[in-house]
Amino acid sequence: MTSTASQKTTKRAHNFNAGPAVMPQPVLEQVQSELLDYGGRGMSVMEMSHRSKEFEDILNRAESDLRTLLDLPDTYSVLFLQGGAHLQFSMLPMNLLPASASADYILTGAWSQVAIREAEKVGRVRIAASTSGSNFDHVPAQADLPLDPNAAYLHFTSNETIHGVEFPIEPQPPAGVPLVCDASSDILSRPIDATKYGLIYAGAQKNLGPAGVTLVIVRNDLLERVPQKLPVMLDYKLMAQNHSLYNTPPTFAIYIVGLVLRWLIGIGGLTEIARRNGAKAKLVYDRIDSSGGFYRGHARPDSRSRMNVTFRLPGEDLEKQFVKQSEAEGFIGLKGHRSVGGLRASLYNALPLESVEALAQFMAEFQRRNG
Amino acid sequence: MTSTASQKTTKRAHNFNAGPAVMPQPVLEQVQSELLDYGGRGMSVMEMSHRSKEFEDILNRAESDLRTLLDLPDTYSVLFLQGGAHLQFSMLPMNLLPASASADYILTGAWSQVAIREAEKVGRVRIAASTSGSNFDHVPAQADLPLDPNAAYLHFTSNETIHGVEFPIEPQPPAGVPLVCDASSDILSRPIDATKYGLIYAGAQKNLGPAGVTLVIVRNDLLERVPQKLPVMLDYKLMAQNHSLYNTPPTFAIYIVGLVLRWLIGIGGLTEIARRNGAKAKLVYDRIDSSGGFYRGHARPDSRSRMNVTFRLPGEDLEKQFVKQSEAEGFIGLKGHRSVGGLRASLYNALPLESVEALAQFMAEFQRRNG
Repeated sequence: MTSTASQKTTKRAHNFNAGPAVMPQPVLEQVQSELLDYGGRGMSVMEMSHRSKEFEDILNRAESDLRTLLDLPDTYSVLFLQGGAHLQFSMLPMNLLPASASADYILTGAWSQVAIREAEKVGRVRIAASTSGSNFDHVPAQADLPLDPNAAYLHFTSNETIHGVEFPIEPQPPAGVPLVCDASSDILSRPIDATKYGLIYAGAQKNLGPAGVTLVIVRNDLLERVPQKLPVMLDYKLMAQNHSLYNTPPTFAIYIVGLVLRWLIGIGGLTEIARRNGAKAKLVYDRIDSSGGFYRGHARPDSRSRMNVTFRLPGEDLEKQFVKQSEAEGFIGLKGHRSVGGLRASLYNALPLESVEALAQFMAEFQRRNG
Repeated sequence: MTSTASQKTTKRAHNFNAGPAVMPQPVLEQVQSELLDYGGRGMSVMEMSHRSKEFEDILNRAESDLRTLLDLPDTYSVLFLQGGAHLQFSMLPMNLLPASASADYILTGAWSQVAIREAEKVGRVRIAASTSGSNFDHVPAQADLPLDPNAAYLHFTSNETIHGVEFPIEPQPPAGVPLVCDASSDILSRPIDATKYGLIYAGAQKNLGPAGVTLVIVRNDLLERVPQKLPVMLDYKLMAQNHSLYNTPPTFAIYIVGLVLRWLIGIGGLTEIARRNGAKAKLVYDRIDSSGGFYRGHARPDSRSRMNVTFRLPGEDLEKQFVKQSEAEGFIGLKGHRSVGGLRASLYNALPLESVEALAQFMAEFQRRNG
């Protein structure tokens, strides 16, 4: 268990949840300490007006820290919305897919599948490439992407939480086609060149904070496409013009996201978190690779997710035993998603190395007992 | 300042914010105590899977407590959604207003105005009655409501947060027309007969909890109207079928709403909170009425809101002084909404009587100094 001098009394679980997921302990401690009295104001952040100076500062600092982490230029807007990636699946084509055009989607797993299904309710969608034939065990190489040079945008899911595959680097769209990314489950897990993107969206509940706030980063020129008379809550342009304060945003969730961003800067930013995430993922994949086939990773090595390690055991009975025994030993959330089965270890930014070391040790012992 | 034996060190502000607003102190204390470790699980609620047994229990208890408070029968579904009342302004007609029909709206202030504007983007809307001619200083009497017997529904805003008018009792729709209510700013402030309603919606950030979760109570037979192929996040029927767990709901906000509902039951339910709210509102309105015209209430006495007391002083300079001096003495949020000016004291469920007594005293002193 991780513990610090100030937290001797709090025994923390080894939390491998796929989302909502583990949070940085220093962030939780700060939320706790300020819960009834933020900065001597005699109020919790959740009791403050979203139009107060205090909350405005919280919002501005969160945006500013995000811009620092991503080296994001002023030509992009940062929006804090609601409804998770699921609502973005609809908002994206409502805002950026004109009736006269078609959008390209790369199908690499369960989440891009849902993104496509929802977009098809709104407009014309073309599946540019699909890895469903190999049960979503990899992402396509750039050479295998026959892209539409006239597409309204090219959409990809940078990390497939359920299948455990991740793009090692973003696909390259044809010239002039904006790149759109659902980065819900690997945002801020490594450095990216944000200027390659037209729009990035992410539900907060993996790497950013609590469920209930959704981050959207959008290049400002794309806002000119937004049609008139969209419902206000579904209108990127209106939200950008109002700095996410057109109506009451999820203030407390945004405050916590702000603390997570501040924590990330404090530990050394995206370069350092990428190093840590790489080390954690290597521990689990090395265990799989050295198991002589007892553990079988789902993803092809070239497409392995550093965030969600998906693997199988020889037989479902053994998988059930693995889940049961791991829970008895204090590991949370290792059961695979109900739609694909098997095991899944989610290793998000806030998961301490110690938890992953404990898991690798548990995997070795489990194999010794059952191999 | 309110204080309890356990909270001697926490000085709490007199929080008259219109929303997000004051929370019950015992709720904040419980959130604080459980923040890093909920029920010995070694995790915060915000770190738990929305599909865990623990969160399922939290969700079920919140729903069950709400049903207890409202005496709500099984013929209604309870949904915990996102996007605030603003998204409901759109979702409501998307789900319940067929292209062949028209919906009746009662226009009583800024919020019903926005509800109408958003509904008009989706379908046919008729303004059944409006009090704009008297600057929204009252709600219409039943006799002044020429209602459409074929309307898809009749919509009203039970309390207008900005103008400070409230329906003393809900309007009565024609036979067979479902009554729909935006109850964002007075939900659970008094007993109602929930079975008179087809649908009730409310953003949480006044009487229910933190911003970022929206309560929708809908009579199940109305779900049959929901059209096919709505975006999943905008589909009442899908959300009801999945018990608000189709995707990741705002888990931490729902947990806090659950604690607020439990607190409400603990103090004696809606009868007791109505008694408290009545006493608080009377203190402020009595001060206005006994001021000899120094304080002028905006709402007609028969339409006065118990939640938001809106009033003017003789001149804007004096109003600015009132705001400034009240802030210096520890009162928060008394400035009127930027769209109407003047003063506003929001007296939601969680605001302690002591804060209202302090306000009444401040008002008397301010008049003595400036009257």
